[in-house]
Parts: sequence; structure tokens; C-alpha cells
Amino acid sequence: MTSAGNVRPGGRTARVREAVRGATLAELAEKGYEGLTVEGVALRAGVHKTTVYRRWGSVEGLAADALDLAGGEPWPVPDTGTIEGDLRELARLVLTGFADPETGPVSTAFITASARNPVVAGALCAFFAARHEQSAVIVTRAVERGELPGGIDAADLVRTAVAPLYYRLFVSGEPVDEAVADRAAAAALAAARAGVFRPPQSP
Amino acid sequence: MTSAGNVRPGGRTARVREAVRGATLAELAEKGYEGLTVEGVALRAGVHKTTVYRRWGSVEGLAADALDLAGGEPWPVPDTGTIEGDLRELARLVLTGFADPETGPVSTAFITASARNPVVAGALCAFFAARHEQSAVIVTRAVERGELPGGIDAADLVRTAVAPLYYRLFVSGEPVDEAVADRAAAAALAAARAGVFRPPQSP
Repeated sequence: MTSAGNVRPGGRTARVREAVRGATLAELAEKGYEGLTVEGVALRAGVHKTTVYRRWGSVEGLAADALDLAGGEPWPVPDTGTIEGDLRELARLVLTGFADPETGPVSTAFITASARNPVVAGALCAFFAARHEQSAVIVTRAVERGELPGGIDAADLVRTAVAPLYYRLFVSGEPVDEAVADRAAAAALAAARAGVFRPPQSP
Repeated sequence: MTSAGNVRPGGRTARVREAVRGATLAELAEKGYEGLTVEGVALRAGVHKTTVYRRWGSVEGLAADALDLAGGEPWPVPDTGTIEGDLRELARLVLTGFADPETGPVSTAFITASARNPVVAGALCAFFAARHEQSAVIVTRAVERGELPGGIDAADLVRTAVAPLYYRLFVSGEPVDEAVADRAAAAALAAARAGVFRPPQSP
């Protein structure tokens, strides 16, 4: 259930939603969040703009729904055979995702829009929660292989492996490259091995 | 040397600059970057708006100059006696800075504006470079005390200690608290001890 209401998969509602969502992403890639309009999305989706207004309400609703669907999509969680390789791959996915001329501008638009828009911020928070949850399997497999002790906060390990990249991209404005990604992954792994991501022991 | 030109300390130029900079920060705190105008800053600073236009050119110039001066200001770099305490204090400074009703909105305004404005982005990048450089003394002292091996990339250790906080604040939109700050600091320290922030060995 989202702001777009009930959706029967395969029905006309689902088809319209898919078209509108695709149009939203394409418009965001081309024009950024500032350039996103209900009219532009309706035109590109081949849907009447009153339909878009009725179901999504506004550009906020469009962006939130696109994020909602994106969060539910399968995502290529790394499976290299080692926790070291998986974390490095995960950090490099952030790098390549933002460097990609299609996905990069859309992700950037969501993040910059969320700073000024509570509806987008809520949807983005849910999107990252889904990503953190999907990535947790990396840690489960590492524990099964005996590479890491159990009881690790997987989401926090994942956050730590990617945070230095986002910090450079969206805060300090410093350049990112594979060396930055690899070092972020290595730092997160060292912290995991040192027991940093285990819950605090009760006294 | 900045976009505001030569400044003789103590002279009229310096006084005007100080007044304009203070007014810029106050306007940013109250209204955010979207609400920043040359007219508003001039009125608050008690300076004619043509003076502001002539010296700073635009709101971009005002924001960049305020950041330039802020980056040069002395900053309470922690000195607790241990690297563990210093890194924890550093991460908690990020937490309290953004929670502060005066400095929080200004810092947030700079970061969100930098995403859409190359002039502000350049000034913010220089600001963070100055902060990273100022914080490096934490690592120098830790090496002198024998807590860390030499040859550590101090800026990267500092980035790693604060990045998870910025990631939650400006990307995933998750809550931050002292436990988050302490864990980020602990992760960075574990990585430093594991040798992650030393330059790669030549083959």
C-alpha cells in the first residue's frame, strides 16, 4: 500500500503505475527534482495529468512512489565468497551507481530533494532501510563461513562500509574512486572483526 | 584572498565584511539557503545593498565568503588525553553541532545548498579540508603517545569517524544519538589500529 492506493498486479492500474514510475525516473534523470512536474510526467507516461494528480497528488507523491517501488526491487547484493570481497563490491556499487549517467542523477535528485521535502525524506529513509536489510545477507553468510562472529548489527556494518563515499559525494564534496571505496570497506571489516558492531554487553 | 577582495584587518572593509558575514549566518539560520537574499543580508548588516552586490555579487558569494571565514576560525579540536576519547568527542561534536538551534540550521543550509550550487560546493569543500587538517593534530598526538603507528592518513581517519553521522543526517535520514557517534568513533579507531589508514605498501 502506498500513496498510489491499491494496485492489482497486471491490471490497468498496475500498468499506469509502471508507466508513471518510469516517466518519473526519466524526468528526474533529465531535469532533477527542481524540474519534475506532474505535467511532464503525465506527458511522458502517456497518461492524462488529472489521473496523475488524482492518484499521486503532487511531485512529492510521484517521487515517493518511485522510491517505494525501487526499494522493493531485487538488487545485486554481492556474493564473492568472502566478506572482504562482498564489502568491497558493496562500496564499489555506490561508486558505480553515482557515476552511471542514468542512475546517478536520479539517486542524487532523491537525496538532495529529501533535505527540503519531508515526504521524499520519509520515502528515502524506507528505501535505505530496505537496502540495509537486503545487504544483511552478506553478514549472515560471513558468520556461516566463520569469517565473523555472530551477533553483529549487519545494517551498521553496511552503513559504515558505504558512509565515507556518501560523505565525500554529498557533504565534503571530495572526489571518490576505487581506492576510497576499498578503504571504506576495509575500515568497516576491521571494525567488525574488532567487535564494534556487536550490541553492548550488559553490565 | 576571497571573492570579497583584499581585507585589511581592523579597517572599514573588515568591519563591513564581519557585519555582512554575521548577517549571512543569521539569515541562513532563520530562513535557510532558499530564503537568503542580498537585500535581507544588507538590511540586517546595516549596509547598503549596492555595497553587498558590488563586493559579494550574489547570495552564492555571500554563502561562500561566510564559509571561507568559518573555515579559518579556531575550532575546539578535542584533547582528552587518549585517541579513543578524542575521536568520540569529535563524533559527538558533529551530533551537538547539528542539534544546536543556531549552528545546526546554518550547517544544514550549507550542505543542502552545495548540492545545487557549485560556488557553495567549492567553498564547503575548502571548509571541510580545513577542518580535516585542523583535526589531524589528534592523530599526531596519538602517535606521540604511542597509541597509533605513524604514517596514518589523519584526514581519512577523521572522515571515517564522522561519516556515519553525516550518512544518517543527510542521506538515509535515520536518527543520530550518542551511541551512533560513539560507535562511529570506535569503528574508525579499530580500522586505524588494523592499519587501514596507512598508505598502500609499494610492491
